[in-house]
Formats: sequence, C-alpha cells, structure tokens
Amino acid sequence: MHSVYLINGPNLNLLGKREPKIYGSLSLASIEETLVAQGSDRGIELVCRQSNHEGDLVTWIQEAGAASAPVILNAGAYTHSSIAIRDAISGSDAQVIEVHLSNIHAREDFRHRSVIAPVCTGVIAGFGSHSYKLALEAICNTLFET
Amino acid sequence: MHSVYLINGPNLNLLGKREPKIYGSLSLASIEETLVAQGSDRGIELVCRQSNHEGDLVTWIQEAGAASAPVILNAGAYTHSSIAIRDAISGSDAQVIEVHLSNIHAREDFRHRSVIAPVCTGVIAGFGSHSYKLALEAICNTLFET
Amino acid sequence: MHSVYLINGPNLNLLGKREPKIYGSLSLASIEETLVAQGSDRGIELVCRQSNHEGDLVTWIQEAGAASAPVILNAGAYTHSSIAIRDAISGSDAQVIEVHLSNIHAREDFRHRSVIAPVCTGVIAGFGSHSYKLALEAICNTLFET
Amino acid sequence: MHSVYLINGPNLNLLGKREPKIYGSLSLASIEETLVAQGSDRGIELVCRQSNHEGDLVTWIQEAGAASAPVILNAGAYTHSSIAIRDAISGSDAQVIEVHLSNIHAREDFRHRSVIAPVCTGVIAGFGSHSYKLALEAICNTLFET
Amino acid sequence: MHSVYLINGPNLNLLGKREPKIYGSLSLASIEETLVAQGSDRGIELVCRQSNHEGDLVTWIQEAGAASAPVILNAGAYTHSSIAIRDAISGSDAQVIEVHLSNIHAREDFRHRSVIAPVCTGVIAGFGSHSYKLALEAICNTLFET
Amino acid sequence: MHSVYLINGPNLNLLGKREPKIYGSLSLASIEETLVAQGSDRGIELVCRQSNHEGDLVTWIQEAGAASAPVILNAGAYTHSSIAIRDAISGSDAQVIEVHLSNIHAREDFRHRSVIAPVCTGVIAGFGSHSYKLALEAICNTLFET
Amino acid sequence: MHSVYLINGPNLNLLGKREPKIYGSLSLASIEETLVAQGSDRGIELVCRQSNHEGDLVTWIQEAGAASAPVILNAGAYTHSSIAIRDAISGSDAQVIEVHLSNIHAREDFRHRSVIAPVCTGVIAGFGSHSYKLALEAICNTLFET
Amino acid sequence: MHSVYLINGPNLNLLGKREPKIYGSLSLASIEETLVAQGSDRGIELVCRQSNHEGDLVTWIQEAGAASAPVILNAGAYTHSSIAIRDAISGSDAQVIEVHLSNIHAREDFRHRSVIAPVCTGVIAGFGSHSYKLALEAICNTLFET
Amino acid sequence: MHSVYLINGPNLNLLGKREPKIYGSLSLASIEETLVAQGSDRGIELVCRQSNHEGDLVTWIQEAGAASAPVILNAGAYTHSSIAIRDAISGSDAQVIEVHLSNIHAREDFRHRSVIAPVCTGVIAGFGSHSYKLALEAICNTLFET
Amino acid sequence: MHSVYLINGPNLNLLGKREPKIYGSLSLASIEETLVAQGSDRGIELVCRQSNHEGDLVTWIQEAGAASAPVILNAGAYTHSSIAIRDAISGSDAQVIEVHLSNIHAREDFRHRSVIAPVCTGVIAGFGSHSYKLALEAICNTLFET
Amino acid sequence: MHSVYLINGPNLNLLGKREPKIYGSLSLASIEETLVAQGSDRGIELVCRQSNHEGDLVTWIQEAGAASAPVILNAGAYTHSSIAIRDAISGSDAQVIEVHLSNIHAREDFRHRSVIAPVCTGVIAGFGSHSYKLALEAICNTLFET
Amino acid sequence: MHSVYLINGPNLNLLGKREPKIYGSLSLASIEETLVAQGSDRGIELVCRQSNHEGDLVTWIQEAGAASAPVILNAGAYTHSSIAIRDAISGSDAQVIEVHLSNIHAREDFRHRSVIAPVCTGVIAGFGSHSYKLALEAICNTLFET
Repeated sequence: MHSVYLINGPNLNLLGKREPKIYGSLSLASIEETLVAQGSDRGIELVCRQSNHEGDLVTWIQEAGAASAPVILNAGAYTHSSIAIRDAISGSDAQVIEVHLSNIHAREDFRHRSVIAPVCTGVIAGFGSHSYKLALEAICNTLFET
Repeated sequence: MHSVYLINGPNLNLLGKREPKIYGSLSLASIEETLVAQGSDRGIELVCRQSNHEGDLVTWIQEAGAASAPVILNAGAYTHSSIAIRDAISGSDAQVIEVHLSNIHAREDFRHRSVIAPVCTGVIAGFGSHSYKLALEAICNTLFET
Repeated sequence: MHSVYLINGPNLNLLGKREPKIYGSLSLASIEETLVAQGSDRGIELVCRQSNHEGDLVTWIQEAGAASAPVILNAGAYTHSSIAIRDAISGSDAQVIEVHLSNIHAREDFRHRSVIAPVCTGVIAGFGSHSYKLALEAICNTLFET
Repeated sequence: MHSVYLINGPNLNLLGKREPKIYGSLSLASIEETLVAQGSDRGIELVCRQSNHEGDLVTWIQEAGAASAPVILNAGAYTHSSIAIRDAISGSDAQVIEVHLSNIHAREDFRHRSVIAPVCTGVIAGFGSHSYKLALEAICNTLFET
Repeated sequence: MHSVYLINGPNLNLLGKREPKIYGSLSLASIEETLVAQGSDRGIELVCRQSNHEGDLVTWIQEAGAASAPVILNAGAYTHSSIAIRDAISGSDAQVIEVHLSNIHAREDFRHRSVIAPVCTGVIAGFGSHSYKLALEAICNTLFET
Repeated sequence: MHSVYLINGPNLNLLGKREPKIYGSLSLASIEETLVAQGSDRGIELVCRQSNHEGDLVTWIQEAGAASAPVILNAGAYTHSSIAIRDAISGSDAQVIEVHLSNIHAREDFRHRSVIAPVCTGVIAGFGSHSYKLALEAICNTLFET
Repeated sequence: MHSVYLINGPNLNLLGKREPKIYGSLSLASIEETLVAQGSDRGIELVCRQSNHEGDLVTWIQEAGAASAPVILNAGAYTHSSIAIRDAISGSDAQVIEVHLSNIHAREDFRHRSVIAPVCTGVIAGFGSHSYKLALEAICNTLFET
Repeated sequence: MHSVYLINGPNLNLLGKREPKIYGSLSLASIEETLVAQGSDRGIELVCRQSNHEGDLVTWIQEAGAASAPVILNAGAYTHSSIAIRDAISGSDAQVIEVHLSNIHAREDFRHRSVIAPVCTGVIAGFGSHSYKLALEAICNTLFET
Repeated sequence: MHSVYLINGPNLNLLGKREPKIYGSLSLASIEETLVAQGSDRGIELVCRQSNHEGDLVTWIQEAGAASAPVILNAGAYTHSSIAIRDAISGSDAQVIEVHLSNIHAREDFRHRSVIAPVCTGVIAGFGSHSYKLALEAICNTLFET
Repeated sequence: MHSVYLINGPNLNLLGKREPKIYGSLSLASIEETLVAQGSDRGIELVCRQSNHEGDLVTWIQEAGAASAPVILNAGAYTHSSIAIRDAISGSDAQVIEVHLSNIHAREDFRHRSVIAPVCTGVIAGFGSHSYKLALEAICNTLFET
Repeated sequence: MHSVYLINGPNLNLLGKREPKIYGSLSLASIEETLVAQGSDRGIELVCRQSNHEGDLVTWIQEAGAASAPVILNAGAYTHSSIAIRDAISGSDAQVIEVHLSNIHAREDFRHRSVIAPVCTGVIAGFGSHSYKLALEAICNTLFET
Repeated sequence: MHSVYLINGPNLNLLGKREPKIYGSLSLASIEETLVAQGSDRGIELVCRQSNHEGDLVTWIQEAGAASAPVILNAGAYTHSSIAIRDAISGSDAQVIEVHLSNIHAREDFRHRSVIAPVCTGVIAGFGSHSYKLALEAICNTLFET
C-alpha cells in the first residue's frame, strides 16, 4: 500500500468558514475525508497534515521525502515566499504536486509567483476542492504507474 | 452531447518528434485520439484544433465561446505574450482550462508568466500528456456538473 | 475622391455581442455602416477591414500606405505589443490615427502602453463608437485640408 | 445653455510664440476665440482658464465639477505627475476630456505616462489646435446627448 | 497656551461633499470645529489652514516651524510627491504628524509611498475624521509632555 | 465586556533592554500593564500575546477573528513580508490596527513597505509606547462606537 | 546539393521602396536573386520565403528543420518578441543564422533585445544586404564544412 | 546693460537660519546683495526672485526668456520633479544655469536626478554661496562673450 | 571558559544524506562533533542548535546575545528573507558570523542576497564543512583576542 | 595598400588553451596568422594587437581612427561595460566591426548587452574563429568598396 | 605656493580634433596652457596629467591626496562607472572638483549618473573649456581661502 | 613547495594610512609580511602583487592559473564590476578565494554585488587583516589536502 502526504499550509484550517466565494464552502476536514476515501479505493493511504508554521511544512516534507511518499501540497501564503519549503522539496527528493483551490493568477500580483513550483512535479490550480482530487488522480496516473 | 474544444498552439504539431525529454514521446495525433476516446466515454465530443497562428487561436476560442463549449487550451509560446487570446477568452465568455505538458515554472524565466491564466478557470501543468486528461476530468467534474 | 482605411484588429468582430459595458452595444458592421455614410458625405470612400491576424493588419497598412490613404486603426490587443504593425506604419509612411472605444488608461496596466502610438499622427480613445467618428473628422480637418 | 470649461496648464500661455514645429503657430487667445465661436453655434458657453499653478487647475476643476460642466483639459506638464489634479477630477465627479496638441507618445519617455487619464472620460492627442475642436465635438456627441 | 497648526492640502476642501464612502460625510469646517474644541480643552490654540497650492503648504509649515508649533498635516495628493514639503519640514525643524482619513495602503499603489513620512514624527491613517483627533491626542501625550 | 487582542511579533520581547533610542526604555510587560489598565477603564479586557513565530501570530489573529475581537498588532519584522498574516486577517475578518513604536518610514527602505497594511483598518506609527495607547483609543472611538 | 532557407519576416517585402537610409535601396527580390546566384556557385539551392505572419515563419522553420536545411533568418519585428519562433528553432533543431540589414543596437531600445538569438548559431547585423551574403558565407564555412 | 535673473525656489528663503552645515550661514538676502554688487561691476543688472510656488518659477523663467536674460536658477526641491519648469526653459529659449549650494549627489538618492538639467546650459553644485558667484562668472565668460 | 553558539537553520538537519555534491557527505552531527572538539582545544564550549523554524533561530540568537556569546550562524533559506533574524542580531547585540557550506553566489539568483549579512561581523562561504571551522578560527582570532 | 586593425581585448591571449568548447582550439597567434594571409590576398595589411588593459584598447582605436583604418574589434569582457572604448570609437570616427567567437546571446545575461555596438558599423558573433574572417570579408565588401 | 592637479581621463587627448560641436575646438594642450597661466597669476602650480588608463587616474589621485593638493578631475567615461576612482578620492582624502566640458545631463542616459560625484566637493559641467577655469576659480575661492 | 598568489587590487596600497576605522591600521606590506611567514610555516611560497590597473590583475590571475597556484584575491573596487577578472578566473581555471577586509554587505549598496564571486571557490569578508589569514588557512585545509 502506497502512502501519499496531503499537506496544507497557513489559514487552510479556515476553509469553509470564510470567504466561500474564493475558497468554497467545504471544511478542510470534509475535503480530507473525501480524499482519504478516494485514495483508499486506489490502495493509497493518505497522511493528512495542516499547520500555520512554515517550519512544520518543512519538517513534514522532509518526512515524506524520507518515506518516498508523494506529496499533495497547498502551501497557502508560503507558496509565494518560502525558500525553506523549496529547499525541503529539492533537499529530500520529495515528489510534490502544488495545489491551489483558487486560480492564483486571477488574484493579487503577489500571488502570481510561486517560489516552490520550479521544484515541484506539476501544478493544479483553480478547481476548488476538485484541485486536490485531480492531484491524487495525477499521482495515480503518473507517479505510481511510470 | 457536450462539445469540448481541444486547442493547441504553435509548435505543438512537433510533439513526439523532438525534445522528448521535455515534451514526451507521444505525437499530437495520438494524444488527441486518446482524449477523443476518453471524452466519448463521458458523452463528450472533442473538437481538435492546432495552429501556429495566433489569429487562428483567437478565432477558435471565439467559436467555442459562441457554442458555450469549454476549452482545453495549450497556447504554447503565445501563453506568455498574447493579450489577443486573453481578450478572446474574456470577450467571448469561454470557459478555458490552461494546460501545459511541462512544468513551465521549472524552465526559463520568460515561461513563468502566463498572460492568459488570469481569465482562465484553472491551470494544469507538468504532467506530460496526462495534463490534457486531467483537464478533461476537471471539465467533467466542475463545469458540466455544477 | 479620397480613400480612408478603417482597420480593426483582433476580437473587434465581437463588438456589440459581448461586454457592452466596456465596448457598447453596436456591432462592428453597424459602426462601419455609419462611418461609410459619414465619409460619403465628405467625399470619402471608406475601405473596411477586420482580422484577428497581426500579419493581416501589417499587410493592409502597407496597402494603405502605398495608396496614400489615411488609416483609422483600432489594433485591439496588438496595440500593446506589435512592433510589426509599428514598422508597417513607419515603413510605408502611412498616416494613421490610433483609435480605441474604451479609455485604455482606465483599464489594466498592460493596456496603458501603446507600441504604435509613437508613429501615429494622433490618438483618440474613450468615446465608444464616437471615437471612430472623431477620427474621421480629424482626418477631414487635418490631413486632407493642410 | 450648457457651460464647458476649457482649462490650460503651465506654459500653454506661450502657444504660438515658441516651438511652432511642435505646438503650432496659433496663440492661445486665438484658439480660445475659435472654440468660443464653435461652442456658441452649439449653444455652449465656454469658460476659458489658463494658469502655471497646479493649485489653480485643481480649484477650477472643482469649480467645473460643482457646476456639472464638462472640462476640456490640457494640463501640460502636470499631466505627467499631478495626483492633485487627478483627485480633483474624481473627487468632484467632473467629466474631463484630456487634450494635447502634440502626440505625447512620440516625444520623451516621461511624457508617455498620464497620471490623469485613468479618471478622464477620454483622450485626444496629436492634432494641434484641432485637438480642442474634436474634444468639444466629443462633448456635444457623447456627454450632452446621451 | 500652545499653538498647533492643522494644515490640509489639495481637495480636502471637498470633504463631506464627495466620495463619502472613502472620506466620510463630515465637512472640513466641521472637523476643524471639533478639533478646535478638543484643543481648547487642553489649552491648545488650533491654527487651521487649507490650500490646493503646494507652495502654500510649504510656507505654512515654515511658519509653524518658526513658531515652534507642532503640525497636524494631511498633505493630500502632495503626500506622494512633494520634496518641497519634505524640505520645509526638515528645514524648519517643524514637528509634524502625517494624517490621512483613509488607509492609503488599501488604495492605489501610488498612494502607498509617502515622501514626507521620513521627516515626520509619526503617521496616523485610516480612522476617518478620528485620525485628526488621535493626532492631537498624540501631540498632547508625546510632544508637549516629554 | 469587550475583548481586544494585543499581539506583538518577533523581538518585541526585547523591548526596554536594547536600542532604547529607537524603541524606548519600557519593557513589553510594562507596556502591556499600562494598556490593560487603560482598557479596564473603558470596559475592555485586553488579551496579550507575543511570539517570535509567524505561525503563532497567524493562529492568534484567527482566534481574535473568531471571537470578533479587534486586534492591536505590532507584527515586527513580519510586517514587511508575511502574506500568511495578511491572509489570516482577511480570512478571519479580524479588525486589525497596525502599530509601530518607531516611524518605520524614517528607517531602512525594506521597512517602508507593509504587506499587512492593506487589510488593516488603520496604521499608527512613530509615537513610541504611545502608539499602542492611541490604537486602543482608536478602537474605542471607531470600532466599538460606530 | 544542399538546401538553405532564406526566411524574411514582416515588412521586409517593403525593402528598397522605403526608408532607404536605414534599409538600403535594393528590393527583396533583387537581394534574393543575388543570393540564389551566390548559393548556386557553391552548390547550394536557396529556398526563399517572406511573410508578415508570425505563424508562417514558425511553419517554415519547422520545415527547414525537418529537411536539415540551415536557415538565414531575418525575422524583422518578430525578432524582439516571438517565443514561438524561438521554440520552432529549438524544437526542430534548425541551424539558424540571425541576420539584420541595419545595426539594431544603434536604433530604438526595444530593438536591442533579440528573443531568438540565444537559440541561433550566430548573429550578423549592420552590413545592409551584405549581411545576407556573409550569412551564406558563414554557412558554407562553418555548417557544411565542419 | 545686461539683465540676469537670479531665481530661487522653495525653502531657499530659509537660507542662513537652518541647517547651516548643509546650506551655509548666509541669508538669501545677503547672497543676493553680494551678487548684485558682483554683477554691477560687470555692467549687469541682477533681477532677484524667490518663491515657494512652482508656478511662480515657471512664470519668471518665461519672463526672463522673453527678455533674453540669462537665468541663474536654484529650483530647490522642484529640481527633481518639475517638468513644468523644464518646459518653461525650453519653451521660452531661456539660457539657464542650474545652481545648488550643496553637492546634491552626496545626499539622498532622490536628489541625484535633475529633471531640468537636460535643458540647461550647465550645472554648478557644491560650493555653497560661491556656486552663485561661479554661475555669474560663467555667464560673463560664456554667454555674453561668445 | 567562553561559550559560542552554533546555530543551523532549515534543512541543515538533512546534511550528509542529500545532494552531497553541493553540501558534502558529512552529517550535521558529525560536523558539530568536530567543531565541539576544535572548540574544546581552545577553551570554548560550543552550544549546538538546529531548527526548521524561523522563530527558534530568533529566540536562540536573543539567548546568545543575552549571554554575550558569539554565534556561528548558517540560517539556510532564511538567510535570504528573514528580517526577524536580522532584528534579533542587531536587537540583542549578538556577534554573528554568517556561514555557508556552498558558495551561495555560484547558485540561483535568489541565494545571492543575504538579508542578515549587513548586521553580521563577517561572512564565510564556499568551503564545505570547513566554513564552520574557519568561522570558529575567526572568532578565536578576532572576537576573543581584540 | 589598406590597413586594418585587429584588436583583441582581455583574456583573448588565452585562446586555444582553455575552454575550447566555447572558444575553439585555435590560439590567437594562429588566428592572426590566418587573417594576415587572408588580408594579404586582398591587398590589406593587418595590424594585430591584444591587451588585457582597457586603456590600451582605447589608445589603439584612437590610433586606427587617426589612420582611417577600419577595426575588427573583439573587446572581450570590456564589450559589456566600457564607455571609454565606445567614446574612443565615436570620438575618433573609427569604423569598427564588433566580433565575438561565441554567440554572446546564448550565454550569461550580462553578456547580452554590448555597450559599444551602438557606435559600431555592425556585429558578427557565434562563428568561432570564422567570425574574424567574416568581419574581414565585410570590410572588403562594404567599407573599401562603397 | 599651492599645487593643484589637473587630471583628464580617457579620450580627452582627442580634444580639439574631433566632435568640436560637443567638446569645442581647443586642444587639451592649449587648455592646459591657459589654465597654467591662470593658476600662475594666483600663485598656484598646476600639475597636468592625462591617461586612457583607469589605474593611472587612481594613482594620480592618490598622489594628489598625499600632497594635499586639490584636484580638477575630468574622468571622462570613467565618471560613470569607476568605483576605483571613487575609492581613491575618499581613501586619500583628496579634494576633488568634478568637471565636464559638455552638459552630461543633456546627453545619453548612461552619462547622467556620476559614480564619483558623491565623494567630490562639487561639480561643474557644460561650459566647454570654461568649466576648467571655473573649477580653478572655485578652488581659489573655497578651498584655499576657507 | 606550493605557490599561492596574494593579489590586491586598486587602493589597497593605501592600507594603514587612511580610513583605519574601515580598513584597520596595518599597511599592506605588513600584512604581506605576516602572511608570508604564515605560509612559510606551511611550506607555501607566497607571491605578492598589488596594482591599481584592472589589466594587471587579469594578467596575474592568468599567470597563477597557468602555474596551478591558488589565489587569495582582494580585487577592491573591481570586485563589483570586472567581468574581465571573472573571465580570467574561469578562463584560466584558477582556484580563487575572494577576500575583503571589511564586511562589504554592511556598506554602500553598490558594494553588495560581487561580479567575481560566482567563479571563486569561496568568499571571506569582514575580519580585517585576519580575512587574509583565514583564506590561507582555507587553502591549506581544502585545496591542498583534498
């Protein structure tokens, strides 16, 4: 059985409660639940993590890298500035898919630049909670089968 | 039966022949074939187009917009400069998913900026020919079912 | 009898159908019709062209230049990037008036810069379909009479 | 009877005396006279003002705004830097048409940017003293008749 | 009895009449009246000035500096460009508190930079007409009592 | 009884011990004590927090937002870079007043830009420990009474 | 017998007719004729193409790449912006020599940057119609003989 | 007898009173007196002006230009931003020598750029009140004698 | 006996395991061991710390500053962005030597800028694990002996 | 008999010894020998110079200009920064062809800008030692024969 | 008897021979002669130097600094880039007056920035060979007499 | 016996005489003497060079490269601009350690960028004359022993 890490960054614990026009009305718990089920169908065990601390994201990505587990990563605000997360990805050879609920390119300028995208496998953004599902789908198609 | 446009821009007719390390070894014809089949299973008719001319992409997007058909768009090099394509999307209210085979953020600086992303629904990049499949999947999940 | 070219660029064939708040509710055909009539009163034959292709605009401007016919040009999105159109204007000594329906300075940043304005005679922007009329008026006043 | 303000900024009192290649050979008085006549034909009373002081332009625009009178404004050098004039326009809801005798885009770089254009109705530039006439024409066509 | 200057710059004479969503519904006269009363309670005589002219603000700040009177300054649009006002402050050793009704950082980019802030004692912005009151409070707490 | 959060960021635990010329000679504990007393007089309970961790500030702002409690926030160095804190403010609808002891505009260039100011209610900077008092005053005047 | 493509971009069909001070007095036809003769002496068949359409240049470069034929390319205005042409060159492994009649570095700033030079073999600029001859010479010396 | 204008801009009325380390201890009146005497020895009548208003400087330069009188200009803070003054100089063909007491290049960055220098005859900076004397000397040597 | 802090930032816990071409094959534990021994010979007690959390680095630097202990600091990715660490150094008067295993100037652009270097005593980079040794050597030579 | 200067700048004395992948395997002496022979066939005497000193290049270009001898100039690293060489070219009216062995546009960013190109007749880059031959060819074709 | 160094940089040996419109028709020798005479009248011995080598200028400035002799420096092209000359000035406490024959602000952009001005006493530019005379005058007035 | 080059650039011949606060009170001769002794203990012969000429530094680095001798290089002001020195290092495969007495990152902005650091082995800055000693130490540890 494969492990996949689902790591969410700062403020994603607010999902469903606030700004539903941008982020949708589902809570993070409910999104995780759906994804765990979807993974389970594919023989994948989903490890779910959320933190507002940059350092925690760094540590968990190292952990996933050590376990050779792919990562679905929504780094939230740290997407745009964290070289530490970028280094954790390239330093631990983690396979990471960058995910965003909203289309970050349709928002403020400072959200257009992703510091971590260059060391990720791919990027999926703009499909609400479906972004996570597509990422898991992508992992099944491309990482575990090639 | 729903229609979906699959529009590919400049140099994507070279797919499979050149630079397989970046773009994979499948030809565009073969990718289109797979996608047509995948669409057919879902009751979707795929309209496939490719051109090296910016103006053709503009025209086809207008066409899709007029037909209320979602678009899977890999605008190739025009992604980074074409305000005309951007205007075609917003001017014709087309639902467009921006797709790239490679992770454009891991390549040259001038490929990091997408002029059209802000008016697209979402972006999928970095999964080779699977990027197209995930886009079609996203259309089924989000556009036709909500 | 004088000839004047009326050249419209990408997406202006959508006029009247979409985004009426920005571009007004008149179709391009109807605007052309009004202008042809206005020109006719002044002994001017209006040659009307529209294309989504940058290359077509280049060719028609060369054509107008060769015929010593002034040009009313709404280059749409190409306004902001096309050195080719700029070169066509200066290379063929065409007398060109740059026209925009909307006030491009009140919109996105990338619409503020016109690559072609420096080689045009003048600029008229922000008066909806009246912008074209004022341009024809300007041609009558300044080009044909001085 | 409608009122329209014709407001000219710094150094436009020199018109006709200097640099006729750029600004033409007509004095400001003579341009104003022509415009007053043109307005009179249309039932418009033209209020003519000129000052080298930024603060005067601010005050007169406020005045026009309070009188609901459209403004034909050639702010001269202040065009490129005056946020105060911009604020006077948006703060007093004045309908302003930005006018230039020369094509500012064909001159030095620092003349390409207009700080006030984003809050104006439209822009007319490059037609010498005809620019003023076209602006009055535009007011008749678009502001008083729609 | 201490003197304090309350100096308001361009367009602040429009307060209360326009754009109440941004600037509130109180007129400048009414704000001045409230502040005069508040000052009077503290043994402070308020000298109130407003002008649309940058040069007037320069002169009044020099005047306040010569009188060793602190200044509550809302320089309006000149905040973002006036080196002359900056030099008046540092050249006359005036104690100046920069005040804004709106939160200038939540508005257009060009309003984020204050040319005068580096030579002011402090900055208070975003509290509507209360910004002035807080500034007077700050003067009582910090300038007159330390 | 209203609650107000007083949140201080990195290095503000050093207050009073170091660089008294810039930050004053009062310790954070002593400032908090004064503010608690001032709040108590107004029927306000002050919740005091300090951390060197960006993630803690994010969490406490979410907490305040959930409790509908206004926040007096001195985010220290994170002021200039933390999109995560900005997102916490806008994501939890917290009412935040940005406070600085020093006039950040009179210091190094990188301290002039505040990433969080655009989503705050207002900004108060440069009055030493009085900045906090003025912020509490502002909350009483504007947030609880309008 | 070797094939070499001579591809000219937008407005080069105007050669000889306009701006002879910059571009010389020879027509494109006459330049092509001379080059065909020069090539013929060396056992080289010259394939001559010109278009105002970016897409045509892309297609012809792909064609040359597929035929392993070196390209003498004067992309005109597209030199400065066309990533599509750049991708055509690198995507089809075409051997391309960038040629300009004028010294582009002695002209406007926007002509100094070549988007395609980084993927070309070399650059020759500033020798009028001799630039083409030198390019053909270079092909004989370096591409066919090493 | 020749006339020469000595025009001083904003805050130069403070000379001698403040910041003597930067600007010296002589008052403007005393500098003017010395210069009048120096001019008188050379058969030159000095016309002395000072204002904090940009518009006044514009007007006086126009006046000097009309009288064909050279100008010694210390535009103070307006040096760095006033296109209006620049236009007054070039628009009235005034012969202007830009003068500064301090070496503006050894001060803040924003003082390094002079907007007016490109249209002046020459620049003299850094010699305290001697800068004015050298400028008058320069006028005698170069303007009146060549 | 002197104390010296050895503080390592994010991802340096991965040393020896990954990317040995850039960072060498020694683990952090082994480097610390060597340095403890080297220090012990000089009568120095080494306090070793590592964290992925920016806030921890801030706290430990404050701690070292309070103990007047010099710091050998490899802040990893935080080197390039952390104003909080910079403030901790200057706020606590800590004597800090910035150290890097790799030559950061030979890597990506964003690694060339150090936010903390301006407040450090000196910088040593590019000598692999020897960088730490040289730093300890530098401390013995310069800090403890002058 | 015509003279032509062949001037090589810093580090070109290393040619053939180092980095043969970029610069080829021929020594400078051998390239000069070939060019002397090629020139001799055409009745041209080649004056060969090399120096690591910017000042020497300046002096030799002045010398060539005084002798009305065209210059083949590979200024090496000084290409990208030397205004002194640029001034020597324009100041002495020397006819200079800028030459590079490698395609400087395919290398580091700082090699893309040539400070001297704007005052040269033309540029030839990317053909290894053939670049020099083509330059001599160009001189024969264009400078001595027109 | 005082010594003053007159140091001229690259290409100033060409004075009088070339570009007389910009630099005048006097040779450097003749300018030096005039200045030696002018100095001699004032009891000043002029030490005249010219070189195309940056290093020579550095050495001579050090020499002047060691001799406490003021320097009249026209560093030519090195004005805009030489930190070495700047360091020689500040490192040797030389009193330097920066001089230019032409008004460098009226020429190309790259001539507007002086790297050495911030460490000079003052700047004189735009008066042709009179610039040197005024500099000597300034030295007599300000350096030797205060 | 190993050779090591100690190369010092412009103005370092002034060491000890000037600005002792920044550069220390030791002369270059005395520093060289100490280093020669230190090297001698390690069986290293130190070759000491200093010049104010960029070209000399280029030549000596080539010389060291040819002799496979490591270089301790303090390029002084040329550090920040000399591509020629950079090319000498990479072109001659010299092993170079960049050294600075002062912490260049704590000084003016233009001293923060090193053009040569990317091709050096490592960088040591900020330890006064100890910087040289540490560099020699580094060479012993890393270059001669690995």
